[in-house]
Amino acid sequence: MAHSPAEQRAMARALELAMRGPRSRNPRVGAVVLSPAGEVLAEGWHRGAGTPHAEVDALSSLPDGAARGATVVVTLEPCNHTGRTGPCVEALIRAGVARVVYALDDPGEVSGGGAARLRAAGIDVEGGILADRALALVGAWVTAARLGRPHVTVKWAQSLDGRAAAADGSSRWITGPEARSDVHARRAEADAIVVGTGTVLADDPALTAREGEKLRAEQPVPVIVGARETPADAAVRSHPHPPLFYDTHDLAFVLDDLWDRGLHRVFVEGGPTLASAFLAAGLADRVLAYVAPVLLGGPRLAVGDIGVPSIDRARRLRVIERVPLGADLLFVAEPEHPAGDPPPRDIGDRAPVSAGPPRRT
Amino acid sequence: MAHSPAEQRAMARALELAMRGPRSRNPRVGAVVLSPAGEVLAEGWHRGAGTPHAEVDALSSLPDGAARGATVVVTLEPCNHTGRTGPCVEALIRAGVARVVYALDDPGEVSGGGAARLRAAGIDVEGGILADRALALVGAWVTAARLGRPHVTVKWAQSLDGRAAAADGSSRWITGPEARSDVHARRAEADAIVVGTGTVLADDPALTAREGEKLRAEQPVPVIVGARETPADAAVRSHPHPPLFYDTHDLAFVLDDLWDRGLHRVFVEGGPTLASAFLAAGLADRVLAYVAPVLLGGPRLAVGDIGVPSIDRARRLRVIERVPLGADLLFVAEPEHPAGDPPPRDIGDRAPVSAGPPRRT
Repeated sequence: MAHSPAEQRAMARALELAMRGPRSRNPRVGAVVLSPAGEVLAEGWHRGAGTPHAEVDALSSLPDGAARGATVVVTLEPCNHTGRTGPCVEALIRAGVARVVYALDDPGEVSGGGAARLRAAGIDVEGGILADRALALVGAWVTAARLGRPHVTVKWAQSLDGRAAAADGSSRWITGPEARSDVHARRAEADAIVVGTGTVLADDPALTAREGEKLRAEQPVPVIVGARETPADAAVRSHPHPPLFYDTHDLAFVLDDLWDRGLHRVFVEGGPTLASAFLAAGLADRVLAYVAPVLLGGPRLAVGDIGVPSIDRARRLRVIERVPLGADLLFVAEPEHPAGDPPPRDIGDRAPVSAGPPRRT
Repeated sequence: MAHSPAEQRAMARALELAMRGPRSRNPRVGAVVLSPAGEVLAEGWHRGAGTPHAEVDALSSLPDGAARGATVVVTLEPCNHTGRTGPCVEALIRAGVARVVYALDDPGEVSGGGAARLRAAGIDVEGGILADRALALVGAWVTAARLGRPHVTVKWAQSLDGRAAAADGSSRWITGPEARSDVHARRAEADAIVVGTGTVLADDPALTAREGEKLRAEQPVPVIVGARETPADAAVRSHPHPPLFYDTHDLAFVLDDLWDRGLHRVFVEGGPTLASAFLAAGLADRVLAYVAPVLLGGPRLAVGDIGVPSIDRARRLRVIERVPLGADLLFVAEPEHPAGDPPPRDIGDRAPVSAGPPRRT
């Protein structure tokens, strides 16, 4: 049975409801319960990890038996596993709903499979309604869910010979205005922008995403990693988002905490020490290298030691795109994963990044 | 008066004669003297710096007065200055020739202007006959003449992050087969291939231009710069050309001597120390950077110190071409010359590179 206009409207509404949920380790999901006649019986959304999923939230506002024969419209495929909250598919079956319409398949290995389970219970199921809009909402979560941690982009600017600055530390500007503008556009697409304390002390960056002099509508949360104190008058303290400070060098811990906060797309901007640490730890999913046609020589390297002892252990990159930006060239690349790389994983409930099995909670 | 078929044939012959001359500081030039009826009266060619120019060589084989009313066909515009040999235009005027046909304008600031001087003396002059073939013969000389020294291409291969090798020195192969094949094709276009003794000791390169396993027809002369001894069994000693050894770090001296030997296109292949020295000295006219999509980190830099203290002194490059070669990318670039760069110069007779004024001799 194809979905009705009422179901389509309900999905649009469910997407609005999803936006009420906070950024968290879990995706933002909304749900609407429709009567067989297409009237809205209940609405719900997910309020963050450890709280009921959206469809259960909606059902819970109805008296017992009121959802019998109803249609549940939900932005993400109902989950099929027991986290903190029990599988949603069980709740839907118990409630006696006749039909479930959802937007996006659950990509989780453990939590996925909900649609099949519902069908096996005799419930009519249709997926893919407004899936593109749902993906825009939770795309970063989907990607991150496959990784078991936030998706990490490591960005740097360098001279052709791999320097981040001249011998005296001066670096304004290695790259041209087109490259810098491209960086700001990509910052706006990130949830968090990460720098080391060394960069804060040396460059006092604002870490905002700007268009010309103007702040962009979307701003990444500034994240500062390292033991040194950020000065009280540092530019980053005037960022639209209050900065997050991590007095640690444990990048897995930082990523796990960012994940908990719903910051799924992380943009690492430097400096060389931090970028190299992410590369060395195998925590760079994407590399953006802005290469300026200049030679600098000297000791200020854009990439430091990344733990490559010999050429057979070189970190090979798959170049996705080379983007000319004025006189500069941007390499967009993904590190090739070594053979035996584990398959994409689902997400644990506040479990360390390295632990499994993962699931929505 | 347009040139006759006999003159055209004579020019083709003059180009053949030019090839008899040795590679030297001077261009290879040939000349043919025709009677007014178009018969060949004499032939000549230039036998190297300090010996008569081709047209004078040809005239000298004729009895006094025999060239009166004759046509001189010569592959390069007769020179107009006193070097070791006196200006050719004077010799032509004294000989009473009626007409001069030449292929290529003399690009020299001092030696040029011969055609105008001849015309002023009432001699009929026509230039540009088979100029393209003459240029193919002496093009490198023309380019080098403008520089006042050989044209220098500095080539290196690097990881995206600017390393020439991994931490343990291993580097086979950073770049792929397409890039390596491109290097061999470009080697074949050079007159000399220059490496430091460090590279000879570390890599034992053959310094031949190959196509697959096969030697190419054109081979650059191998040149080894530095104080250390090249082992008796070094691969370079089996090169089709006997290697030239320079126990010096005076690159200007090396270039001047290569120029004297008629090696006008110099290909500097490394390693990092030598490449950096050419860059630091401002002696790189062209840069070829083969960039492989890998990250290596570590201390083995493709370009070392090149004397850039601060960003405003960065060596800016004009990128001529970016050539994808398999997974690698070749940057073909020319260093931008600082403001106040001296204009192109002519060539001195064994004068140091830094001295002027320059001339053919």
